[in-house]
Amino acid sequence: MAAVRLRLRPNDDSFYEFFTKAAENIVRGTELLTELAMPKADVQSVSERLVEVEHDNDALTHELYNRINSSFVTPFDREDIYQLGSQLDDVVDHLEAVGSLLYLYGLTSLPSLPREMHEMVAILDQQARLTAKSLPGLKAMKGLKDYWVECNRLENEGDRAYRMLLVRLFSGEYDALTVMKMKEVADELEAACDAFEHVSNTVETIAVKES
Amino acid sequence: MAAVRLRLRPNDDSFYEFFTKAAENIVRGTELLTELAMPKADVQSVSERLVEVEHDNDALTHELYNRINSSFVTPFDREDIYQLGSQLDDVVDHLEAVGSLLYLYGLTSLPSLPREMHEMVAILDQQARLTAKSLPGLKAMKGLKDYWVECNRLENEGDRAYRMLLVRLFSGEYDALTVMKMKEVADELEAACDAFEHVSNTVETIAVKES
Amino acid sequence: MAAVRLRLRPNDDSFYEFFTKAAENIVRGTELLTELAMPKADVQSVSERLVEVEHDNDALTHELYNRINSSFVTPFDREDIYQLGSQLDDVVDHLEAVGSLLYLYGLTSLPSLPREMHEMVAILDQQARLTAKSLPGLKAMKGLKDYWVECNRLENEGDRAYRMLLVRLFSGEYDALTVMKMKEVADELEAACDAFEHVSNTVETIAVKES
Repeated sequence: MAAVRLRLRPNDDSFYEFFTKAAENIVRGTELLTELAMPKADVQSVSERLVEVEHDNDALTHELYNRINSSFVTPFDREDIYQLGSQLDDVVDHLEAVGSLLYLYGLTSLPSLPREMHEMVAILDQQARLTAKSLPGLKAMKGLKDYWVECNRLENEGDRAYRMLLVRLFSGEYDALTVMKMKEVADELEAACDAFEHVSNTVETIAVKES
Repeated sequence: MAAVRLRLRPNDDSFYEFFTKAAENIVRGTELLTELAMPKADVQSVSERLVEVEHDNDALTHELYNRINSSFVTPFDREDIYQLGSQLDDVVDHLEAVGSLLYLYGLTSLPSLPREMHEMVAILDQQARLTAKSLPGLKAMKGLKDYWVECNRLENEGDRAYRMLLVRLFSGEYDALTVMKMKEVADELEAACDAFEHVSNTVETIAVKES
Repeated sequence: MAAVRLRLRPNDDSFYEFFTKAAENIVRGTELLTELAMPKADVQSVSERLVEVEHDNDALTHELYNRINSSFVTPFDREDIYQLGSQLDDVVDHLEAVGSLLYLYGLTSLPSLPREMHEMVAILDQQARLTAKSLPGLKAMKGLKDYWVECNRLENEGDRAYRMLLVRLFSGEYDALTVMKMKEVADELEAACDAFEHVSNTVETIAVKES
């Protein structure tokens, strides 16, 4: 496992640093998912690296919580920082679950995954990059509205792709057990998409309080 | 789309007005679901009107949030008003999902839907009418206990109908793919039923604080 | 139905007493589940006793809420007590659902349930006993960290068993409808496991505030 080190300096920057690092780690996660969804991916290697991403995020979150508990002053409400950390963690958990289920259910041995599943992975990757680009804006409270509006738009797009994916899964193209397996993966993709929106909702809450 | 206009007057009545309008809009939603569940319904037209109901509710909720943010004084806790708005929105989202899934999965072309599904729609319609009748009571804080007790009773009835619906779905009467489609619809019906209860729980919280 | 009587004395001990009684009632629940999962269990009798456990818990929770509302002083934050009561109630609801679904879907007439399902029941029983042993520690705020660390570890173990259960269910060993029925039961087992963790998270929150 690659070690993640987050220096917690006595000033507040460590909080912003956490959000930046966590979001960059999440981009690693969606890149791995994109790789995994490709035909002939080295499935075992990729899903092991996804588990690493999850462990790295756990380590980051743990440091964040320690930092919250040991700080007299925090840049914004303690509970909002806590929630943001926990919601970034949820994103990673769902990304890891997608990888593990694709692997455990043997779905990556199919000639190809449904087109709508690729669409959902692409949307998650866009949400991840947007989040990584925008969270550093928490420091100066800049550019955040564009972020949450766009993140919400992507979540709506993800919802549509999810609905269309289910229509395809239930169309008779696959046998019942394959449908059930893919449905589990689809649900995790959709939960990841929602989880990104929860992050952006919390950023909105913080920005509204600060304004 | 029919335009919904909510005048936000400088006094507090606009909040009560919002809840009344949102609840009346929800009654439109459950009426449309009742129509949709009938054999030979004009499925496309009804589900389009359900989408309108959802858009109208989004507009109402948006106005409510603006109103909360621009008010110095609110008739009860800001966060409770926010939560009530968001929970009424959840109800509508689940009702719209029921309509869309019935349509997208082609379930309305079946000779008939399972009896327990009709029961669930009827319970939702009762919850909607009860909510529309009761929310105006927030102004004078009257008749609210009867509302939340009855809404809870209806939710329990919905739970029982949901369980019996699953027993029927898994009984072998339908093929596996049809069961999976109907299960998705059943889950949205059950979520709508729960969402009504969440509304009534928040009303209870508000009433207890005020008493 | 066996009557549960919780004397609410004027001092604070009644709160601790509630948590102890609720946790002991939950142990009754997981014992019944263990019995139910055995071949040749008297299914109807056991699932009726599970419903009793649920009713007893409802009565306990109701008394707790009355007690919270009628107390000027509470041993820790009112909302944390409320949440703990409600989360213990969630555990019981999921345990009762497991029993009812096994019975309603006729799964107990199978020669045996999948090994991973027995594992999940065993984990729930461990979580229940751990909770019953640890909650009395709330009074002196002792031994609680070991509790939440261990409860979390058990939840992770439950997650692994759940994933492996789904892999087995989707392996082709069972027909599609049986898979769907067992999936419903598996989801309730997993939700119960999570619900125990939510209880321990709230205990952690309380302990951190008090420290």
